[in-house]
Amino acid sequence: MKDQISTMPPEGAFSWPVRVYYEDTDAGGVVYHAAYLRFLERARTEWLRDLGFDQSVIRERDNLVFAVRSMEIGFLKPARFDDVLSVSVFDCRAGRASFEMAQAIRREDGEVLCQARVRVACVDAETFAPKAVPKRIIREITNER
Amino acid sequence: MKDQISTMPPEGAFSWPVRVYYEDTDAGGVVYHAAYLRFLERARTEWLRDLGFDQSVIRERDNLVFAVRSMEIGFLKPARFDDVLSVSVFDCRAGRASFEMAQAIRREDGEVLCQARVRVACVDAETFAPKAVPKRIIREITNER
Amino acid sequence: MKDQISTMPPEGAFSWPVRVYYEDTDAGGVVYHAAYLRFLERARTEWLRDLGFDQSVIRERDNLVFAVRSMEIGFLKPARFDDVLSVSVFDCRAGRASFEMAQAIRREDGEVLCQARVRVACVDAETFAPKAVPKRIIREITNER
Amino acid sequence: MKDQISTMPPEGAFSWPVRVYYEDTDAGGVVYHAAYLRFLERARTEWLRDLGFDQSVIRERDNLVFAVRSMEIGFLKPARFDDVLSVSVFDCRAGRASFEMAQAIRREDGEVLCQARVRVACVDAETFAPKAVPKRIIREITNER
Repeated sequence: MKDQISTMPPEGAFSWPVRVYYEDTDAGGVVYHAAYLRFLERARTEWLRDLGFDQSVIRERDNLVFAVRSMEIGFLKPARFDDVLSVSVFDCRAGRASFEMAQAIRREDGEVLCQARVRVACVDAETFAPKAVPKRIIREITNER
Repeated sequence: MKDQISTMPPEGAFSWPVRVYYEDTDAGGVVYHAAYLRFLERARTEWLRDLGFDQSVIRERDNLVFAVRSMEIGFLKPARFDDVLSVSVFDCRAGRASFEMAQAIRREDGEVLCQARVRVACVDAETFAPKAVPKRIIREITNER
Repeated sequence: MKDQISTMPPEGAFSWPVRVYYEDTDAGGVVYHAAYLRFLERARTEWLRDLGFDQSVIRERDNLVFAVRSMEIGFLKPARFDDVLSVSVFDCRAGRASFEMAQAIRREDGEVLCQARVRVACVDAETFAPKAVPKRIIREITNER
Repeated sequence: MKDQISTMPPEGAFSWPVRVYYEDTDAGGVVYHAAYLRFLERARTEWLRDLGFDQSVIRERDNLVFAVRSMEIGFLKPARFDDVLSVSVFDCRAGRASFEMAQAIRREDGEVLCQARVRVACVDAETFAPKAVPKRIIREITNER
């Protein structure tokens, strides 16, 4: 297993600011590792919203929810209480029933703290059976690339 | 606002062990205050299970879920990573559409770290409208007292 | 135990926006009750920052951290995924080694979802022994009232 | 990126039971993806404790903490409220300043819900600089394999 995902967010990649609060830290004095997954998801949610897709509307309209299917993640440096982080989404590729993207978390000084490659599946909101990614979403995601 | 809820768990009160993991702590080096609410709920869930009520079954059968309506809580002493806590439920009183109980969290040496008084409402699983507490649940809760 | 804390945020009270993400919800379909405590703390942190106090600086400089000592909280209506909430802090009173304040969480349409009265103690960052609230903090908190 | 880590827990692998509570679920109706990382860490903590190593003691004695460095994780099937999961640790290999292991989460019926490969670094508790894995830990980890 390699230690870090090598891709870096390109200029102009979508990014979302996240402030670190006490709730995100642990007794090690830094951000708890699973908290970064919450940060990554906030950025994906805001990236979709920025492309015109509120997940609550998608669920209502298409009976579709997104489920994280797999992830490779590298925790490179620790973030600390009061840090402001920038969480980016980039290099998104759509498959038939899922899409995949790179994400990075950077500190204000530009230091990359976390890198991830995430695959998200489209599933039926009730049965969790795979569903095709809606065409209008693929279109926007692909433009984004 | 008084600082602590004075009631102490009586002999034989239901109690549930909770181990403190890193996920429960914060950069202050001790358990994050909101984590105690998770511990309190685990104990309420296991107390109900012990009385014969799995909440997943209640939801399926009665379309009813429990929602915390209000809480008074005192954080007396901090718990730490690796501590084993004992979370108790006692002095439960049932109303028409809600029930109320006392809870305490103790360390292995008996020291009380947290005390709470919690009111839980029965609500419709879809609409969140108040529903009567099922008779069979009132009966068991009342025996418990 | 009364069900709700009656105080309402006055005009001009400090408030902080919080977006609800999946991480904040539970299988009931709405925000998990303990998540509101995280929202309340984010608003307190930003309120202190707005008054000129970064807690990371206070800890460094005064070896002092804030610890929630007690809380009365009413969960009035559920918040949902994608909601934008406004979390306010008001009616703050300083004691010798602690301060107390009211907080409310409202939805965009003005509906109050959660009300709380919170007491926060100043404690030594290492020993957790009570410490006097620094004068400069009392001064700002009192102006804020 | 491949979707799942193929390794399965062998007979006799260390495993730890985890009950799913409301706190672990999200509005999708199933366990929130980041919650599995908390479950995986609980199992690693108990596995180390089972080998004779309390992390609070290691920190005190060696000024050493463990930090998750990287992870590959596949979320195969969703766990639900009230499920009892079995979280295993196996195939552990020690490097100089880190160790790596496989983990799996299974439902009571044996269905594998989650598979992961995790690398954990030994770091100085204050500076987070890499430290050698203590010999006595390597010894136990290696026997475990």
